[in-house]
Amino acid sequence: MRIGVLGTGMVGRTIAGALAERGHDVRVGSRSAGGDAVAFADAAAHGEVLFNCTNGAASLDALAAAGESNLAGKVLIDVANPLDFSGGGPALFTSSTDSLGERIQHAFPAARVVKALNTMNCNLMVDPASVPGDHVVFVCGDDGQAKEQVRALLGELGWPAERVIDIGDIAGARGTEMYLMLWLRLMGATGGPHFNIALATP
Amino acid sequence: MRIGVLGTGMVGRTIAGALAERGHDVRVGSRSAGGDAVAFADAAAHGEVLFNCTNGAASLDALAAAGESNLAGKVLIDVANPLDFSGGGPALFTSSTDSLGERIQHAFPAARVVKALNTMNCNLMVDPASVPGDHVVFVCGDDGQAKEQVRALLGELGWPAERVIDIGDIAGARGTEMYLMLWLRLMGATGGPHFNIALATP
Repeated sequence: MRIGVLGTGMVGRTIAGALAERGHDVRVGSRSAGGDAVAFADAAAHGEVLFNCTNGAASLDALAAAGESNLAGKVLIDVANPLDFSGGGPALFTSSTDSLGERIQHAFPAARVVKALNTMNCNLMVDPASVPGDHVVFVCGDDGQAKEQVRALLGELGWPAERVIDIGDIAGARGTEMYLMLWLRLMGATGGPHFNIALATP
Repeated sequence: MRIGVLGTGMVGRTIAGALAERGHDVRVGSRSAGGDAVAFADAAAHGEVLFNCTNGAASLDALAAAGESNLAGKVLIDVANPLDFSGGGPALFTSSTDSLGERIQHAFPAARVVKALNTMNCNLMVDPASVPGDHVVFVCGDDGQAKEQVRALLGELGWPAERVIDIGDIAGARGTEMYLMLWLRLMGATGGPHFNIALATP
């Protein structure tokens, strides 16, 4: 499959590398093309499926640079978090009635936005078996078919279908993004970023 | 032990009942004494350890009515959440740089506030074995000895020490309170409130 990954940070590189290893035709996009990265618009035009792995604060600008027509009709997997370090400590630039996932869906209504993978370290995203246990990944979005496509792609990355938890429409991004404030504390409690959460049910 | 439980809703009744069953001398406080509830101030004066089980939006007023001198020096377990339904849907009246736990600690500096138990349904709080698996409860607060007292009390309610996760100072309440937005979605995904999260670590 042709995949466009927006963002050349750790998350983008890790996802792009893992998908290329599995035989996908991946292009990585950055603000200023260079090295093995192309421009945002070229990566977006290339991909049948797109990943937003840019910094949350820069995501809307990056997607605008990618070009609305290059996003239209495509599954856009939003991995970014609305983290704000401007005040010194970690905070979110969204409130509990808002989320980055919703802002992206609202700004690009023809894209089929699915929020996913933003609740864990990037190594775990592409290698869930590196941590034992039935820990989970959340997906949410307004387009059910898009979520099923993401579930299949997550399966290729090692996520069994029953560990991909559908939490509803794109407003569910409020939950997975705000969870980051707990994630940061759990990183401290567990001694590093290599952990995830599992669901315990009766 | 003499315990004061502030709040006569489901959470307060459930915690008070479970602690009374275990032999504690429990008084439940409400805004207007009546039935088997005493006034907030009487419950707070009675307790060596206090639970705040009031509605989050009313917690600061309830604690003021309980009386600063009745809180001073005591472990105050804050179970409340800053939920705001005024806009129609569930939201938080705090931001990511703030929390109800911190507001309470700030307003009553002589109380030894420990945020705990606010991440689950009240039946699970007092009967963790009703859901299988090594799911966890989080504690945070500025007073390490107070957290150890809470860990012991949680042990009486059925929480093994290793499943009581210390996530640091009271600002950790930002994490456990904001998690509620994910919890609400997980309630939808799992079909009800009888679930919890476990930590998967390498």
